[in-house]
Amino acid sequence: MKILVLNSGSSSIKFKLFEMDNRTVLASGMIEEIGNPNSKVIIKTANSNIKELTNIPNHEVGTEVLNDLLHKTGVLKDFSELAGIGHRVVHGGDKFKESCIVDDSVIKGIEELSILAPLHNPGHLAGIRSAMKKAPNVPNVTVFDTVFHQTMPEYAYLYAIPYELYKKYDVRKYGFHGTSHKYVTQEAAKFMGIRLDSFNAISLHIGNGASATAIRGGKSIDTSMGITPLEGLMMGTRSGDIDPAAITYLSQVMNVRSKEIYTILNKKSGLLGICGTSDIREVKRMMLEDDDKMARLAYNMYMYRITKYIGSYIAILGRVDAIIFTAGVGENYDRLRLDICNRINHMGVNIDKDLNEKEGSGIRFITKPDSIIRALIVPTDEELAIALDVLKLITKEKSC
Amino acid sequence: MKILVLNSGSSSIKFKLFEMDNRTVLASGMIEEIGNPNSKVIIKTANSNIKELTNIPNHEVGTEVLNDLLHKTGVLKDFSELAGIGHRVVHGGDKFKESCIVDDSVIKGIEELSILAPLHNPGHLAGIRSAMKKAPNVPNVTVFDTVFHQTMPEYAYLYAIPYELYKKYDVRKYGFHGTSHKYVTQEAAKFMGIRLDSFNAISLHIGNGASATAIRGGKSIDTSMGITPLEGLMMGTRSGDIDPAAITYLSQVMNVRSKEIYTILNKKSGLLGICGTSDIREVKRMMLEDDDKMARLAYNMYMYRITKYIGSYIAILGRVDAIIFTAGVGENYDRLRLDICNRINHMGVNIDKDLNEKEGSGIRFITKPDSIIRALIVPTDEELAIALDVLKLITKEKSC
Repeated sequence: MKILVLNSGSSSIKFKLFEMDNRTVLASGMIEEIGNPNSKVIIKTANSNIKELTNIPNHEVGTEVLNDLLHKTGVLKDFSELAGIGHRVVHGGDKFKESCIVDDSVIKGIEELSILAPLHNPGHLAGIRSAMKKAPNVPNVTVFDTVFHQTMPEYAYLYAIPYELYKKYDVRKYGFHGTSHKYVTQEAAKFMGIRLDSFNAISLHIGNGASATAIRGGKSIDTSMGITPLEGLMMGTRSGDIDPAAITYLSQVMNVRSKEIYTILNKKSGLLGICGTSDIREVKRMMLEDDDKMARLAYNMYMYRITKYIGSYIAILGRVDAIIFTAGVGENYDRLRLDICNRINHMGVNIDKDLNEKEGSGIRFITKPDSIIRALIVPTDEELAIALDVLKLITKEKSC
Repeated sequence: MKILVLNSGSSSIKFKLFEMDNRTVLASGMIEEIGNPNSKVIIKTANSNIKELTNIPNHEVGTEVLNDLLHKTGVLKDFSELAGIGHRVVHGGDKFKESCIVDDSVIKGIEELSILAPLHNPGHLAGIRSAMKKAPNVPNVTVFDTVFHQTMPEYAYLYAIPYELYKKYDVRKYGFHGTSHKYVTQEAAKFMGIRLDSFNAISLHIGNGASATAIRGGKSIDTSMGITPLEGLMMGTRSGDIDPAAITYLSQVMNVRSKEIYTILNKKSGLLGICGTSDIREVKRMMLEDDDKMARLAYNMYMYRITKYIGSYIAILGRVDAIIFTAGVGENYDRLRLDICNRINHMGVNIDKDLNEKEGSGIRFITKPDSIIRALIVPTDEELAIALDVLKLITKEKSC
């Protein structure tokens, strides 16, 4: 049974094709710079590695190209052979409490939420519509980044602003990276032999974007991202938490619209804003090889803010079974994990330096067996998690 | 030796007159609605309680009226009898690292910082200038709300925004309520018999405005307020932490300038925004007497956010000797202290219900003797703290 997972942006489509019978990846890749005469296509299968430049004016053509290339590499006859197509959708707002088989009302819902996610939802919709057109008989499923966090209590997700602004404009904390937080939480509970409904954890998804989630009984009860992915931890190019008055102040002293400040906070801040690169591997190199002060400062700010979120989530959770490190940085940057865990050793996290440094690819502990709070690396796999949701829904044949 | 402490706003002057020889308050009160034909004057001394409506067009006339009334009540011959005048100044930016005897450069500095504190610094300046004019031979001292937090490390006070915006526009976390946080920290260390330079604490100044400070070795190493007093905890009318993108989003969907959103976040949010009153005593009454759901929600949000800040500060501090509750709400709302301490019992805070509920007026413990982290109530006295700073400076005769 083959399932295709698509992550469509405004000018890109990332994809992964799964054989769900044995959970293997048949093909993966991306189409980039859609709308540019030299759009890039990359596709990898077990036997081929295609890179080409071609003219892909829109998502519809992109879907045709993808269909043809999957055929050409021999991993799929054509889209009609698919058991289902899963679409990652960043913002599901308050509307979507679970993954959905796409119908008109789902499309309408995602459209209406575009105001909350103007950079993401329109691209997702273009991808969904193209896939539906190409394979009208294949069920399409939307999996939302926000859904896992819909279990947050009201006192955690509400901002302390006039309540009518929440009712009227849906201004609240939604949280993102939900598919990843959910996946690693389930994997960690299974690995530790703890029933999911009594599993308490802090999940740290640290990649170019980054968020922390407090999990009680397997469910998200708080998370660091907000109405948008800007809030919370310091990221590659995003500021994370900042006095909201700084937007108004900067808009005034720089004499620009607040929208421009918003763009600066999203695209030119974070690690990039402090030391000139958004890539933590480069930050690491600059610290070690160049003894670069700004890189050291950026690293310290980055690490410090993660530590503070862990502390605040330990406070509200009480018992914590696990701290989970995942995503690009979380899985691969041992020194960051070491510094964070050492900083909260007094809270019961006893890291094992050797386990932490040891190369590995699977789920594994990095704390000593006697650590009151265990810490572990859990490789995330958002595409597989989406494919599993598709599988569940198409077997149940239930829309939301 | 008599010292007068002034807290001048844009349309008000609060004052307290101290006899420093025995630290008693000779007079206190306020002038309100300066600029209104019916300005209000209130003055209390041991023997009198004056309330009158009169026309006070500006701070200069206000200072004259204050001089005359202090004379009339017999507590002061006139301003020339004062050993010094202390002025509370909200924003000292990066410029002021300590309290200062006022000279031209100090005035210029406060003027330049008005862009960071447009609601506060201009009123302070009007008060300082009027006092200097009325009593040209009395030393005037400025005491800044930000100074105590100038010991924060760079990685704690910087926002993760382009570094040049910090260099160019001074955008960083400054923190406020510093005079109070410093005072209660010193009082708590003394009370507990711990040397200030090895005293670690979390100071919670919870009044209509509210902020939390992490203290290591008697010094502020982090605090919840930011470049303005808007960031951090939920307050009477201020939102505290919120996704900065919410400003841009609300400005767009409401079709108003971001400055209007800033005003909503400062004046119509917090407890007021959620349940219609900014007064925690009324929130309490609504919960208990009316079983009001929105009041309950506001209370839960308020308490939850304080708890999270405590957790994050425990994480970065390591050993914590004391959690200090101060200011109007912190000193007087036993149920709030109980709920917070119970929530973090697992972190070593063992509250004594009886001690917590017992009426009292001085500094006192509210945890059991075996509590790993002690919690205590420390009545704050910002005016006395300012007067003590004035005393120190006029005896040293040193400007900054």
